[in-house]
Amino acid sequence: MTVEFRRRHIALRAKLAESTADSLVVTHLPNVFYLTGFTGSAGVVTLKGHRCTLFTDGRYATQAPEETKSAGVKIAIAKGSLLQAAGHDFGGKSRSRVVFDPAHTTVAALRSLESAAGNKVSWQAESGWIEELRSVKSADEISRLRAAAKLISQVFESVLPIIRPGLRERELAAEIEYKMKKLGAEGPAFDTIVASGKRSALPHARPTERRLKRNELVVLDLGAILARYCSDLTRTVYLGRAPKRIKNWYRAVLEAQEAGREALGEGVECGAADSAARAVLALYGFADCFTHSLGHGLGLEIHEDPRLAAGQKRLLHAGNIVTVEPGVYMEGLGGIRVEDDVLIKKSGVEVLTTATREFLEL
Amino acid sequence: MTVEFRRRHIALRAKLAESTADSLVVTHLPNVFYLTGFTGSAGVVTLKGHRCTLFTDGRYATQAPEETKSAGVKIAIAKGSLLQAAGHDFGGKSRSRVVFDPAHTTVAALRSLESAAGNKVSWQAESGWIEELRSVKSADEISRLRAAAKLISQVFESVLPIIRPGLRERELAAEIEYKMKKLGAEGPAFDTIVASGKRSALPHARPTERRLKRNELVVLDLGAILARYCSDLTRTVYLGRAPKRIKNWYRAVLEAQEAGREALGEGVECGAADSAARAVLALYGFADCFTHSLGHGLGLEIHEDPRLAAGQKRLLHAGNIVTVEPGVYMEGLGGIRVEDDVLIKKSGVEVLTTATREFLEL
Repeated sequence: MTVEFRRRHIALRAKLAESTADSLVVTHLPNVFYLTGFTGSAGVVTLKGHRCTLFTDGRYATQAPEETKSAGVKIAIAKGSLLQAAGHDFGGKSRSRVVFDPAHTTVAALRSLESAAGNKVSWQAESGWIEELRSVKSADEISRLRAAAKLISQVFESVLPIIRPGLRERELAAEIEYKMKKLGAEGPAFDTIVASGKRSALPHARPTERRLKRNELVVLDLGAILARYCSDLTRTVYLGRAPKRIKNWYRAVLEAQEAGREALGEGVECGAADSAARAVLALYGFADCFTHSLGHGLGLEIHEDPRLAAGQKRLLHAGNIVTVEPGVYMEGLGGIRVEDDVLIKKSGVEVLTTATREFLEL
Repeated sequence: MTVEFRRRHIALRAKLAESTADSLVVTHLPNVFYLTGFTGSAGVVTLKGHRCTLFTDGRYATQAPEETKSAGVKIAIAKGSLLQAAGHDFGGKSRSRVVFDPAHTTVAALRSLESAAGNKVSWQAESGWIEELRSVKSADEISRLRAAAKLISQVFESVLPIIRPGLRERELAAEIEYKMKKLGAEGPAFDTIVASGKRSALPHARPTERRLKRNELVVLDLGAILARYCSDLTRTVYLGRAPKRIKNWYRAVLEAQEAGREALGEGVECGAADSAARAVLALYGFADCFTHSLGHGLGLEIHEDPRLAAGQKRLLHAGNIVTVEPGVYMEGLGGIRVEDDVLIKKSGVEVLTTATREFLEL
């Protein structure tokens, strides 16, 4: 059993020891992977005393032992429902109290667990235990996230030559996702955003059949999954020579992003970075045009803890990796967003994404 | 309000009228789309008396009214949690009983609803009401599914020329997904499977860095989402001249697939098609090598009702669309699977996927 998995199991056993519960059930697949290394689409993990068990089905009879070799877990191949098998695992003659995460457990799943475990077992809802562990990345995780961030930066740079008037948003998104895979990514970490012209004012635009046009902004928001870890990058480019007004606008966003990055650090409140970026935009008169929060953690999932949002008192830790992505959106006109992935270190930060932040006029 | 949406709302009100409940809350996004036309990533629907309300957030203030124009729903932009806003909608002075789907509602979500609605409201778990409606496709849905099936067939045919020894599984998967998007698809309906050589014996293989080799089988399982509806196609090809043994094996799968398709029809038990395909494979001595069920419904999601599996007593209806996908897998050797999407009609069936089922030696 490798140090990494052992550390994770020990941390959870420590949480259990501090609580009034004695066992834990895990149903959320990224958390199942985090505790066992198993990548299949059907898995439930139980932690009970010194035993960690992965329940999966017959399709994974070969794959599950291979993938979980170094995690020190027992594999149980369930014939029927995994939840029922896991529930049975908790059942027995002695009383037991099992933690589950209410945000990842459906009402139907909890009922399955309850009915299989029987009435000696009580169930305790606790949110985000594993997410909290996951928010602090290990050295191995950091190197994977660095590689994913580098890859997505290469993808961005590789599509620059084809961004020209006439190309459809959807075609550009297809090229971007194709490049990711050619460079070895498992796939996109989310639906790639290509939003041009007025549509760039929509922070969550989906690519359409619209063709890119001269003298317009194009927001590109792209992320790749590499070795299971996510990256997330946004750049905004201009097709043609941008008027002064647009350049000024871009400068405001860029300065806000710098201010956000500079406010990050070990022991700093998450909300502070959001405020720092927002304060810069306010100086430019764009306070009302930044309609979302500054950033989010990323790792096995594209949105994780910690969240960089107004009023967040949580403190940043070395090993957190977050996006910093201020944007300015003006309905009917367009939008500009600049986003990088940033690692918090014991001292200072490291920007993992490597694409230029210079304003590109293509 | 268009006939289609009205019909869906009426059908649900009829279910409520038959039950002891008076209202309904819907949290599963494909179901939210089905009832309102809304495609955003944050939406909760309530059905209460003659009012249908979509709760969403400020990001969708423009998009939600546009998309739901013809659905006759009220839009409510929530400041905070959508579930709390929806819960409040049920609260009030009079007693009420609200149906929720336990398979789509987390324990945390139910608690949010409960706390916002207050103690005059009771909650009734009912599974699959909307899924049952969704399993019978309307004329509009059928034409979308037909278009998605045609598109994926074209994608398959378009990549045939590049399938040759030396190409990596992952590269071929990337080409396939790229072609989908070039042809107008929103994206893949699931992670494309390209499994070559021994890996073709794994029904759920993910594409790897492995290079295709001469004298090996390649299983391609691909699906696209077009206008929000899914398609699903599997073909197995051979690189080189196949030995007689492999041809015989392919013939067995193909005959099993034909038998499965021929067993389908209005009023037929779902399990009958599975048995028919399995009986053919048994005649060839492959009974134990077909390790999954015959097929599944598809529509807004890639796996829907009805399921074509052993013992399923549910009757097929005109308007059901299902995959028919028998496979024969031999560990250490390889696998063959052939899959089409089939519409059940009042009389007979229509195969929606158009790719040739001939055994291709490339």
